[in-house]
Amino acid sequence: MKHETAPSSTATALTNLERDATKENIVPFWTVVDRAHPNEPQPAVKPFVWKWETLNDLLQRAGELVDTAEGRAERRALSLLNPGLGGRYGTTHTLIAGVQMILPGEIAYAHRHTPDALRFIIEGHGAYTTVEGEKVYVEPGDLVLTPSWLTHDHGNESNESVIWMDALDVPLVNLLDVSFFEQFKGWKQEPKKPTENSLKMYGSGLLSPSWQKPPARESSPLLVYRWGPTLNALRQLADAETSPFDDVALEYRNPFTGGPVMASISCCIQLLRPGVRTSAHRHTSSVVYFVVRGRGHSLINGERFDWKERDFLVLPNWAWHEHANESASEEAILFSVSDGPVFDALGLHREERRGQSLQIS
Amino acid sequence: MKHETAPSSTATALTNLERDATKENIVPFWTVVDRAHPNEPQPAVKPFVWKWETLNDLLQRAGELVDTAEGRAERRALSLLNPGLGGRYGTTHTLIAGVQMILPGEIAYAHRHTPDALRFIIEGHGAYTTVEGEKVYVEPGDLVLTPSWLTHDHGNESNESVIWMDALDVPLVNLLDVSFFEQFKGWKQEPKKPTENSLKMYGSGLLSPSWQKPPARESSPLLVYRWGPTLNALRQLADAETSPFDDVALEYRNPFTGGPVMASISCCIQLLRPGVRTSAHRHTSSVVYFVVRGRGHSLINGERFDWKERDFLVLPNWAWHEHANESASEEAILFSVSDGPVFDALGLHREERRGQSLQIS
Amino acid sequence: MKHETAPSSTATALTNLERDATKENIVPFWTVVDRAHPNEPQPAVKPFVWKWETLNDLLQRAGELVDTAEGRAERRALSLLNPGLGGRYGTTHTLIAGVQMILPGEIAYAHRHTPDALRFIIEGHGAYTTVEGEKVYVEPGDLVLTPSWLTHDHGNESNESVIWMDALDVPLVNLLDVSFFEQFKGWKQEPKKPTENSLKMYGSGLLSPSWQKPPARESSPLLVYRWGPTLNALRQLADAETSPFDDVALEYRNPFTGGPVMASISCCIQLLRPGVRTSAHRHTSSVVYFVVRGRGHSLINGERFDWKERDFLVLPNWAWHEHANESASEEAILFSVSDGPVFDALGLHREERRGQSLQIS
Amino acid sequence: MKHETAPSSTATALTNLERDATKENIVPFWTVVDRAHPNEPQPAVKPFVWKWETLNDLLQRAGELVDTAEGRAERRALSLLNPGLGGRYGTTHTLIAGVQMILPGEIAYAHRHTPDALRFIIEGHGAYTTVEGEKVYVEPGDLVLTPSWLTHDHGNESNESVIWMDALDVPLVNLLDVSFFEQFKGWKQEPKKPTENSLKMYGSGLLSPSWQKPPARESSPLLVYRWGPTLNALRQLADAETSPFDDVALEYRNPFTGGPVMASISCCIQLLRPGVRTSAHRHTSSVVYFVVRGRGHSLINGERFDWKERDFLVLPNWAWHEHANESASEEAILFSVSDGPVFDALGLHREERRGQSLQIS
Repeated sequence: MKHETAPSSTATALTNLERDATKENIVPFWTVVDRAHPNEPQPAVKPFVWKWETLNDLLQRAGELVDTAEGRAERRALSLLNPGLGGRYGTTHTLIAGVQMILPGEIAYAHRHTPDALRFIIEGHGAYTTVEGEKVYVEPGDLVLTPSWLTHDHGNESNESVIWMDALDVPLVNLLDVSFFEQFKGWKQEPKKPTENSLKMYGSGLLSPSWQKPPARESSPLLVYRWGPTLNALRQLADAETSPFDDVALEYRNPFTGGPVMASISCCIQLLRPGVRTSAHRHTSSVVYFVVRGRGHSLINGERFDWKERDFLVLPNWAWHEHANESASEEAILFSVSDGPVFDALGLHREERRGQSLQIS
Repeated sequence: MKHETAPSSTATALTNLERDATKENIVPFWTVVDRAHPNEPQPAVKPFVWKWETLNDLLQRAGELVDTAEGRAERRALSLLNPGLGGRYGTTHTLIAGVQMILPGEIAYAHRHTPDALRFIIEGHGAYTTVEGEKVYVEPGDLVLTPSWLTHDHGNESNESVIWMDALDVPLVNLLDVSFFEQFKGWKQEPKKPTENSLKMYGSGLLSPSWQKPPARESSPLLVYRWGPTLNALRQLADAETSPFDDVALEYRNPFTGGPVMASISCCIQLLRPGVRTSAHRHTSSVVYFVVRGRGHSLINGERFDWKERDFLVLPNWAWHEHANESASEEAILFSVSDGPVFDALGLHREERRGQSLQIS
Repeated sequence: MKHETAPSSTATALTNLERDATKENIVPFWTVVDRAHPNEPQPAVKPFVWKWETLNDLLQRAGELVDTAEGRAERRALSLLNPGLGGRYGTTHTLIAGVQMILPGEIAYAHRHTPDALRFIIEGHGAYTTVEGEKVYVEPGDLVLTPSWLTHDHGNESNESVIWMDALDVPLVNLLDVSFFEQFKGWKQEPKKPTENSLKMYGSGLLSPSWQKPPARESSPLLVYRWGPTLNALRQLADAETSPFDDVALEYRNPFTGGPVMASISCCIQLLRPGVRTSAHRHTSSVVYFVVRGRGHSLINGERFDWKERDFLVLPNWAWHEHANESASEEAILFSVSDGPVFDALGLHREERRGQSLQIS
Repeated sequence: MKHETAPSSTATALTNLERDATKENIVPFWTVVDRAHPNEPQPAVKPFVWKWETLNDLLQRAGELVDTAEGRAERRALSLLNPGLGGRYGTTHTLIAGVQMILPGEIAYAHRHTPDALRFIIEGHGAYTTVEGEKVYVEPGDLVLTPSWLTHDHGNESNESVIWMDALDVPLVNLLDVSFFEQFKGWKQEPKKPTENSLKMYGSGLLSPSWQKPPARESSPLLVYRWGPTLNALRQLADAETSPFDDVALEYRNPFTGGPVMASISCCIQLLRPGVRTSAHRHTSSVVYFVVRGRGHSLINGERFDWKERDFLVLPNWAWHEHANESASEEAILFSVSDGPVFDALGLHREERRGQSLQIS
């Protein structure tokens, strides 16, 4: 039951109330309810394609100019900034992706940080990553994990440059204000384990040492997922079932949980068969794609984005999307990283689907 | 091996590289590494106390002025804005807390949203909350859950105003851009289940229906935690073990997992015995405290914050803190909410401790 | 493709084959397939009722005759032998139940064993159980756990005899041949923890110490479930939902998992309202019932078994059963133990239902 | 306080008490305590070796004599009976192993049962197993699962006989009296899924379809573990770590849990390097070994058991054992099945170790 106040004096009193509240670091909820509770996500992130020519040109110039020796550059890396985020450091609001080059003989020195990180090797042979004393040599197509707070360094023992894609959840970690970073004492770690130890222990995926479980942590015990078995698994799956939204799509798994490879980031490899055009859906997670091979386009909220081998494409959260392989004869393969595990862990995952029948022209 | 370029021309070339990259929505990592990877959290959140006199005065004025009927105010609530967040809607970077008043005969109409929400009843008798068709009457000291996406409405069937504390993870949900909000068709839900059904099914905590498990969701199956057993459990624990950092502290649990009551928010009730002064520690989670009874102070990063019954106190993430009950004879009781489950779920929880011996003067 | 052997010579050759195999500790599968793979369970266990008068008479005589001092009787206990098991030690094929009496001043000395064990107190005040250094005083209606391999001893500090029901999974442990048994050094344990520590830490079921999880083991961290809150929970549930097969039935839960109280044994308390007659079902688990109060009967595979206060009833695995409270005004309460967790853990649980509507006369 | 009865009359009274109890299906606990609670396991199971010559001879004779057509033999299989179990159907108290032969053109018709079952292919090409509509062709060294209650049939489409090892937990299922068995309507299942579907979906172990989880059941979603990758994984592991008790030993895993392949049975493949002699240990689980290649011996509770390619060896529960590869140049490979998951699930697993240094001569 309200007092019978004249509307005008009520309005004045309300204004006064709001003013007085503001002074006390209090805001009346009814003045902010629409801003506080959007009916659905309001992505600031925009879809965008970064062309390989551009990335490679900048990377080669950086190779000439940037020294990774102590005191210079922590890493010779280029990060993809989403044009919708106003200069904030992020390819999406939660993920940062980019490319990195390591020259013959170089060392990218050892450190550790709370963000999860991974690399997908683009070109070059003879580089290695050492994670917590385990050294792994990497080849194009390999996925290499450097999970949260594990010390890692990279080096190139060959005569050619090595280039890879980086992806980290730095923006998420900074939104949550939980960044920790630590330089290793010394430039590089001495291997403490047999080379590629985790691959020898857990690399088959189906069999593992009978006498022990892997270390208990929020990430896969396996540090590298090789390209050969990955491509083989894609070709196998093409003979079984496919997804209307992603065609032949595999998620890299933690073989001890079936879950994502790291706490906040999941990785997928996906093959679009010649002429395939997927159905549209959208989900609360955002995705960064790297085109391993082939050419095609994606429709994102109705807008067309063309891509070809080695381009990068970002898909905003809650954006309708569908993919097309434009070739009638060549397969297209996309590697991608997503923040999906965050939404799953917090019970905030959602998906909407539009049609479910994949078309093959 | 670097080319022998004169320093000045290298500097120019680097500047050009950075400029060209910027045009392409690319940023050289070495120019942002310090900003992207802080060595430790950089809380913008500041410690602050909101006094009950202030909150109550504003709330009473709002009771006179704000109508909760359709089209007016979604809720008659005042939200606590952290002075360090520059007007962003948040008591911390992840949580929003506040107070809400519901007048005799009023209805706070039905809706649902992705943020988790809870209420801790401060004063007044005869109000109820209906969650997914289950109606629960609430009394001072009761903790009432309205987890993510469950439809809820409130009403007051008594002759007196009812005031409660609200807490939600709205800022977190907005950082992740995953807000969904939906008005219910109609102002209020008709009860579809026996009154206080979840209390009858799962309220003992130790016994539950033999023929079924509770609904599978990311929150406790129990919608209300009564004050009586809560206070009793505190007094029991005081005879067993205590924590050097929190004295007699209990976490409200999901009785089917032992985990937090909701996916993103944990709740604690804590009793500081007369004269107790806790040891200092800090953790990556932030906390909002409500003083249920007693008076004391907290030292936060060395600064003193006094509090007394019904005040609110916010503790930033990664801030050193210790609490003192200033009375030599009266207990102090604090209810608190924390974003700890988010950091646990993502493997990002950390704690540092300074000394471990609690003092009793 | 078979050789064209005359039937008679084939029969002879087969007989020779079987004989030769037998000598080599080999059996042709086709000669045992029906015995090895029954179409459904073939319970040897028979339904049976042990009357309280009988049990109590024997127990009182044992009180006169049996000394529990060193070298005499490990425990003054009477075990219920299933008449279908041909003298094998078991109330069912997996569980042994019985009654135990402890006289004023006596000590049932400390030991530990791999079988899970529990007690349900029938009469007398002033006895205690000490489990791993935690002493708990027990009262009628309390459920007390002594899980696998935890050292336990009992004593009676009062002036009256105390009688309780025992239940253990000794037969299961012996079927699996995994019995370990160890006398404690010394007759009784000195308390190492505050009296009733687990009750003070975890007894509310809904709140527990904020700073720690209970010890990781396959059983509830709570050593005693008090009768008062148990009865209260039953009465609460009677106002909510009921089961057509068990009426008002609660399972004692591990508050950190929602699972059974011990690895191999689950416990239930069940109230049959006046005049209730439940529907028939059967399941792969077997059950031993103790009648806490009231009188009624059970139909087991069509045969009627009458029971009244303090009687014991055994239900074989895979036996159709339904219960009736014969009183029109008094409630009947049954405490029961089951081997259900074993079948759940191994994926071997099954249930069949006949009708689903409970009748109240 | 005991009555002062003369010893002799007490003895008489006790005898009377025991006699009266027995009539009532009650046994005084003190008369059976030693039998009910052995201090440690009392294995009836004995170690034993079944020679391949014997098995093969009997199997070939059975091939001549036994028709698997309807009404004849459910399976042409020979089961290994433990000489310590007095004719009970079991290779150990929980497991039954044996060999099976399927002739060209034969069908081993479709059924399902609650025991878990598996096959390890010994010789022959061109046979298949169909499990729940998924047809899989099997080759020597493949491990094929037919988990509890999944319909399965086998056939041989080639011109040569196929022989495999069978292993099931029939004795365990019968101890628990939870056998269910059902003939399929029709002799064989029509394939409902792409051939080797589970292999295509989950066979890489490290990547799996991004859009779905495997069916929720207590066993691996993968129906066949191929020999090629198995052997490859063994050779990989030999370059990393080894176990003092099992040398180079891998457990076949459920790639979604890291757990055993089925609820009650775990499978291992183990390579003893030339000259290796393992350290002794014992555990509560029992094991049946099949010698894939090589020759050596095992010391079981101090007694020597020689084995060579294709022999079977049974290890009783709680028996000290160590293995030796007698060749200085050839590797020995053992496939084995164990009931370990049962003891793990019930919290009853134990192990004792004697020394921990493996010797290589």
